[in-house]
Amino acid sequence: MPRFFIDTEPSEYITVTGGDARHIGYSLRMKKGDSITFCRMGTDYFCTITEMSEDTVTCRIDRAEPSKCEPSVSLTLYQAFPKQDKFEQIIQKTVELGAARIVPFLSKRCVSRPSEKDFAKKLERFRKISEEAAKQSGRGIIPEVAPLMTFEQALEDMKSCELRLICYENGGKRLSELGLPEYKSIGVMIGSEGGFDRSEAERAADSGAVPVWLGERILRCETCPVAVSAVIMNLTGNM
Amino acid sequence: MPRFFIDTEPSEYITVTGGDARHIGYSLRMKKGDSITFCRMGTDYFCTITEMSEDTVTCRIDRAEPSKCEPSVSLTLYQAFPKQDKFEQIIQKTVELGAARIVPFLSKRCVSRPSEKDFAKKLERFRKISEEAAKQSGRGIIPEVAPLMTFEQALEDMKSCELRLICYENGGKRLSELGLPEYKSIGVMIGSEGGFDRSEAERAADSGAVPVWLGERILRCETCPVAVSAVIMNLTGNM
Repeated sequence: MPRFFIDTEPSEYITVTGGDARHIGYSLRMKKGDSITFCRMGTDYFCTITEMSEDTVTCRIDRAEPSKCEPSVSLTLYQAFPKQDKFEQIIQKTVELGAARIVPFLSKRCVSRPSEKDFAKKLERFRKISEEAAKQSGRGIIPEVAPLMTFEQALEDMKSCELRLICYENGGKRLSELGLPEYKSIGVMIGSEGGFDRSEAERAADSGAVPVWLGERILRCETCPVAVSAVIMNLTGNM
Repeated sequence: MPRFFIDTEPSEYITVTGGDARHIGYSLRMKKGDSITFCRMGTDYFCTITEMSEDTVTCRIDRAEPSKCEPSVSLTLYQAFPKQDKFEQIIQKTVELGAARIVPFLSKRCVSRPSEKDFAKKLERFRKISEEAAKQSGRGIIPEVAPLMTFEQALEDMKSCELRLICYENGGKRLSELGLPEYKSIGVMIGSEGGFDRSEAERAADSGAVPVWLGERILRCETCPVAVSAVIMNLTGNM
């Protein structure tokens, strides 16, 4: 069933205008009486279309339920910014897999180093990719893509997570050894093309992040967050 | 350390010619006395370069060891053939993650349906992608990309695996419930863009494949094999 996201809490009816309304009427060719789902902050609103005009669609809310597609764990991905197309792949795949938030940051070995201003211009596109992936995979939220941070800002931001991890190819614990189901929120720091510098890995460990090791095979920077998200969702009973 | 694959079992020395030799001399700028690793069928040969000419590199084998990068489980991915660029992504990522073999086949909902002959032309390119991913991730083998099969041929081929699975969005067991560490070889069937038709899922189950469910969120066909490979490697102690 088609899913759309809304911004404000609805009461009895949901009225959609603009691009989404045209998408419902023209692309999906939906009509009065059809079923449609709207989502807002983890709640699914199951609706019936009651009125349609050229650019407005009105829907009656039949029932509202917590979205069963949202994982029980809140996973934030702190991703050292790779080349743009790789970052876009990472957003798409990790949103499908259940990430709650994606925070890009600059580490020493990042090759692509956009200024804050240049990054801000791209943020709208990144957020669109998150929204599309959320719709397509049936999520109950649109995971936020945060503005670009420094390494220190990312470490500080990660303090809001109950469990903090950093993927480090030179060794650490396995994901299975961490008792993941105990935690409600997990933050994982993942390197860009060249991985992390030793001083960064040490700094993250000092700030409370547990080094995690993903085995003998070297993963590309865009494979690592997808693999880590899948394994965390599996180990926490969400896949 | 740079890794190269060789075709025949070496004795005391390894001699490399052609593209690999030029890659060693020109691109990597390696020289006499440098260390280099060769792999063949799960064995790593740790070598020292002893002679170099324009297009030949000779290396002394210092020691040979079973490749520690090879997972303890042999994972074969039976992938319903998606659009070509997605299949290439799937090869690259699942080889990094440890798949032993990738078998493409045609299912009812495959959109891209190359003839056997057209597929055969692309096979060399697919195998090159597997080789590159194997080198880059440090594998001890080059995982085979098999010729295109029919659904029935794929089911028959999968009988060589101790445990047989089919990912099916309409329900099944979770990967964590299957006692994966008991098995030495696992085959997983994964759908293309539209997933599997119900009759195909039933046919696979009849032939002994356990339906597997990956949770509430709908994964793209190129995300699913990457997620499944990562979770299987984790659950079998290989990640």
